[in-house]
Amino acid sequence: MKLLDGKLMATQIKAEIASDVQQSFLNKGLPVPHIAAVLVGDDPASQSYIAGKEKACKEVGFISSVYRYPVTITQEKLIEVIRFLNDDTEIDGLIVQLPLPKHIDENKIIEQIKPQKDIDGFHPVNIGRMVLGLPCFLPATPKGILTLLERYQIETTGKNCVVLGRSHIVGSPISILLSRKSTIGNATVTLCHSHTPNITSITSQADILIVAMGKLGFVTADMVKQDAVVIDVGIHRIPSDETKSGFKLKGDVDFEKVSRKCSYITPVPGGVGLMTVVSLLQNTILAAKKVIY
Amino acid sequence: MKLLDGKLMATQIKAEIASDVQQSFLNKGLPVPHIAAVLVGDDPASQSYIAGKEKACKEVGFISSVYRYPVTITQEKLIEVIRFLNDDTEIDGLIVQLPLPKHIDENKIIEQIKPQKDIDGFHPVNIGRMVLGLPCFLPATPKGILTLLERYQIETTGKNCVVLGRSHIVGSPISILLSRKSTIGNATVTLCHSHTPNITSITSQADILIVAMGKLGFVTADMVKQDAVVIDVGIHRIPSDETKSGFKLKGDVDFEKVSRKCSYITPVPGGVGLMTVVSLLQNTILAAKKVIY
Repeated sequence: MKLLDGKLMATQIKAEIASDVQQSFLNKGLPVPHIAAVLVGDDPASQSYIAGKEKACKEVGFISSVYRYPVTITQEKLIEVIRFLNDDTEIDGLIVQLPLPKHIDENKIIEQIKPQKDIDGFHPVNIGRMVLGLPCFLPATPKGILTLLERYQIETTGKNCVVLGRSHIVGSPISILLSRKSTIGNATVTLCHSHTPNITSITSQADILIVAMGKLGFVTADMVKQDAVVIDVGIHRIPSDETKSGFKLKGDVDFEKVSRKCSYITPVPGGVGLMTVVSLLQNTILAAKKVIY
Repeated sequence: MKLLDGKLMATQIKAEIASDVQQSFLNKGLPVPHIAAVLVGDDPASQSYIAGKEKACKEVGFISSVYRYPVTITQEKLIEVIRFLNDDTEIDGLIVQLPLPKHIDENKIIEQIKPQKDIDGFHPVNIGRMVLGLPCFLPATPKGILTLLERYQIETTGKNCVVLGRSHIVGSPISILLSRKSTIGNATVTLCHSHTPNITSITSQADILIVAMGKLGFVTADMVKQDAVVIDVGIHRIPSDETKSGFKLKGDVDFEKVSRKCSYITPVPGGVGLMTVVSLLQNTILAAKKVIY
């Protein structure tokens, strides 16, 4: 078994991005890429995600700015904010940290983001273009999975790929991407979800198994084919006496037992999660260079 | 075996639409729905498709107008035409008959159509919204398949569904639609294509098999599970002594033998093809009533 080491990959790619910032922007006297993030309310998980993104921006030499609003902000006001940031030519990438408070329609907000700045790849135009195989910003987590498969030179063409979970941000787009006519693609993909009755009989035939269910330790060794490639997108905080922080991160896969059976596996932490932020940075470079639109 | 009778369904639905035109438009003194079609060149198949759409419009009481241009029209001029039709408030639905001549970029043209008038459901915004489960114009052929399944009360939730072919207009969207969280959906979908090595072992497990390969008679009885539901999207003209026209229409499925084994099957002709035009009419009603946008 080999680890698909998201930490190592993320470090390598961030170094490549930092060097690109130097060469393609600083050396040419151009402004460096700039991500603006909108954060509503004070949810600790959202705060921590935003902090992670700011840190990553700093590491590669991007500018980042965070626009913070109280949880009471109206939908109309938030739309105004987004329009203002859309029009700011100094901002290349614009993200709105989810979830938003319940009185705000997330879809309405996402549709307000200019597709040209939608580095999260959540706007319908970017998703539609993804389905059609046209240039677009790919959603960050699926893009991170493709990057891992590509960098570890894992063949996907003709492989039997099973995706567990049909969320709009992971399961559904990765199932679309892996069946596309593309080098990292051309797989036969089966998308399973809460209504799939016989999941084990399906997963146990998978050459590549992508797990994004949001259920702690859902995938056990008996569900996995010998020598499969296993990608674990789940992330759960569980209490632990062994760590200083008092908790441990675990995934949707029973890592200890499944890892003995498969050829490649992503650890949690240190797997897909770190690749997600890297994808955001890559999308921002594309936005700043105006490669997509 | 029962036929999924596209001809019967299309007739029924067209009668419903005609009655809706009377009640929701004529009786209220509102202008009836209006489809504008753009036809470039003189490809006989395209001419015949357009004629079919005009006939269907007449049957339900829609206005239809066809804008014909020579094969030599430039991309710039065609974009101008589309912008003009986008702005014409008397037009509810706008279709550009494909294929376009090779010097014109089809994707560029489709992206010019106002999503609010895109009754073909080909614009990235509509495809993206489809993926996200938001209100949108569904692409006509997949929508026709959903309508057949719905009207024949075929359960899809929890079923094993296999789609053959990953085209942008049929295979790919129907695979997305059937796995969505929706009454006609919630199936476990596997999307197969030219890179799938062991197609028979996959199709023979399908409760619902949707065939959109474009290969005459590709699906034989040994590939089909006993009592499966089989939807044949293929359409091939083959020479025949038995008909006045000198040809017969056949599908991607070996109807004679497969029909003996399955519970439901669409005939060719008289199956999915006729539902496609009906979907266009349904989308136009939605556009005229401004239900989606």
